[in-house]
Amino acid sequence: MSDVVELAQELIRRRSVTPDDAGCQALLAARLARAGFRCTALPFGEVENLWATHGGDGPVLVFLGHTDVVPSGPESAWASPPFEPVVRDGRLYGRGAADMKGSVAAMCVALEDFVARHAHHAGSVALLLTSDEEGIAEHGVRRVAQHFRESGQRIDWCVVGEPSSRERLGDLIRIGRRGSLTGTLRVRGVQGHVAYPEKARNPIHQAAPALAELAAMRWDAGNLAFPPTSFQISNLNAGTGADNVIPGTLQAVFNFRHGTASTPEELRARLESVLRRHGLDYQIDWRQSGTPFLTQDGPLRRAVCAVLQQQLGIKPELSTGGGTSDGRFIAPLGAEVVELGPLNASIHKVDEHIALDELERLPGLFSAIAERLLVTP
Amino acid sequence: MSDVVELAQELIRRRSVTPDDAGCQALLAARLARAGFRCTALPFGEVENLWATHGGDGPVLVFLGHTDVVPSGPESAWASPPFEPVVRDGRLYGRGAADMKGSVAAMCVALEDFVARHAHHAGSVALLLTSDEEGIAEHGVRRVAQHFRESGQRIDWCVVGEPSSRERLGDLIRIGRRGSLTGTLRVRGVQGHVAYPEKARNPIHQAAPALAELAAMRWDAGNLAFPPTSFQISNLNAGTGADNVIPGTLQAVFNFRHGTASTPEELRARLESVLRRHGLDYQIDWRQSGTPFLTQDGPLRRAVCAVLQQQLGIKPELSTGGGTSDGRFIAPLGAEVVELGPLNASIHKVDEHIALDELERLPGLFSAIAERLLVTP
Repeated sequence: MSDVVELAQELIRRRSVTPDDAGCQALLAARLARAGFRCTALPFGEVENLWATHGGDGPVLVFLGHTDVVPSGPESAWASPPFEPVVRDGRLYGRGAADMKGSVAAMCVALEDFVARHAHHAGSVALLLTSDEEGIAEHGVRRVAQHFRESGQRIDWCVVGEPSSRERLGDLIRIGRRGSLTGTLRVRGVQGHVAYPEKARNPIHQAAPALAELAAMRWDAGNLAFPPTSFQISNLNAGTGADNVIPGTLQAVFNFRHGTASTPEELRARLESVLRRHGLDYQIDWRQSGTPFLTQDGPLRRAVCAVLQQQLGIKPELSTGGGTSDGRFIAPLGAEVVELGPLNASIHKVDEHIALDELERLPGLFSAIAERLLVTP
Repeated sequence: MSDVVELAQELIRRRSVTPDDAGCQALLAARLARAGFRCTALPFGEVENLWATHGGDGPVLVFLGHTDVVPSGPESAWASPPFEPVVRDGRLYGRGAADMKGSVAAMCVALEDFVARHAHHAGSVALLLTSDEEGIAEHGVRRVAQHFRESGQRIDWCVVGEPSSRERLGDLIRIGRRGSLTGTLRVRGVQGHVAYPEKARNPIHQAAPALAELAAMRWDAGNLAFPPTSFQISNLNAGTGADNVIPGTLQAVFNFRHGTASTPEELRARLESVLRRHGLDYQIDWRQSGTPFLTQDGPLRRAVCAVLQQQLGIKPELSTGGGTSDGRFIAPLGAEVVELGPLNASIHKVDEHIALDELERLPGLFSAIAERLLVTP
């Protein structure tokens, strides 16, 4: 059994359901400290974060991961217990195998190997871990990035180990992510009896044409880097429960996923102009939970693509799709950010797994990226 | 203090919050039995119903009322306790004063007076009371009407004492009521993550244009007897509560109030054709909680109008507006139904009241109607 598979198994055995780290970071810190890293715990609230760094002045390359996992759901639905790692048919099974204890184990092994072979690399190389990526993510990397901003810690390049691959390791890397803008809309009407609609104002009737128009709207055409902005109403509620009462208010929650073709300000203004045109008496609470980021062609993208070409013979798709990731907090520090990790088909599901040959390939990819960026040939 | 005011006070003192009769019917049955009425209790479930009748073969005139009242709400909001009747500024205050213990007291006093003066009237005269008009109304007059249908009890004329008047006693009588048709709509979509809308089908987005079209629709123009059909969506719910999940289903509850210009079948078919045209995957549970009825010009309408003209100098507006009443269950037995009662401005509110002069006028109106129908001049 290789080192990375053993380490991944040790991590899976720790029930680190978000935001619990369950000792994962202490295990990794001990290993990296032995390898010469300076390890700093950065706890915020109930969340554990680890910052392990090696080297000195110069460009900073950070590997970013999380030790927390989503809940397993009913354990009886799993073929084998989710927190007891098992190798079966060439795959390692367990909660977090793909998202992302496999990547975290690979990053640790890659870094140990890298500093052993290049004790005097340029700049510095670091591992940043959080135990709150799957949860509300308030005290994880968001908070660490704020700390870095205050302490002047620069980051030039960041490799996120999130499971990005589709069918084959390295076939897709993320070079950006869309922003996420959420609104909670309240439409006010006038409550009344359904038999006397002339004495009431039904907020469902008032809002329906506006919601229909918003749902049908084309917000932008996207651009080379991002797909068109999407708009989804996720929750809609009105009514007292009684059949014969016209409700006094309607509430809707909606979410934009947007690239750089529209700014959040533009989306807000266009949405509100529709509501006003329909004469709604409304208020909206807005929450921007992530701004879009995009890593242009540069040293990091070139290094990742060269490594994938060289080691796997793959030219990856450069994607900005999917949800959000902790990369959204690092990019605003001025870093180039690329996400590269294993196949994501089984994540958040029962019988989550990673293929052993994928897992054993990962340390070599990560350490080769570090070599291209921090070692002069 | 006149007899009708005293009796109304005795009734108000009994906390007969729907469906509790709280002894009201026993009190009235005892009085009517002393006056020569045959009194039969018709309890169904937890609901008390009273059938008190006097006379023999021939046309049947029924006075219809209910002894239950809606809850008072916080008693501290009332100027005087809702179940302690108080006369103040020429008004009798208390829960049920207008809806409809005042009318019930007046009917009882009118019937005592009528049979005392006309022991040998034609046909029969009766009082029908229920303790479940304000509640779900399943075991009240709906159930009694079914019993009458099975036992062959005919009803020719029915005077409902519901508070029909607007600004002055007798200025409006109801000669019919609209029907009420309720639908519970479920629209099926496909649940998913808001970041991947292409893998989901959002039932809110799918339903919004259909609901907008339904809300804007003109269902009919009404007719001489009824206003246009009205359509109101009373409840609308979709969403898991999570901001980032596209829901799998949407549920809406809507209600039609319709006259005779559209049949329930027509309304159902037209609504469903809109849903189908929008391509919705849906199901609907329908519930017809009342069919419309209309009392044409005939002996009852003529008797009521003549009495109002003679005693109050009023030519009443003949209305089919408002909600539903227990008249909807009596009309299908083949009866002419007219609703005549006090002002309705304070019903279901705090400080419900009836003017003393209104209350003292009511027994004379009711007994004069009986005289016109059952006493040969």
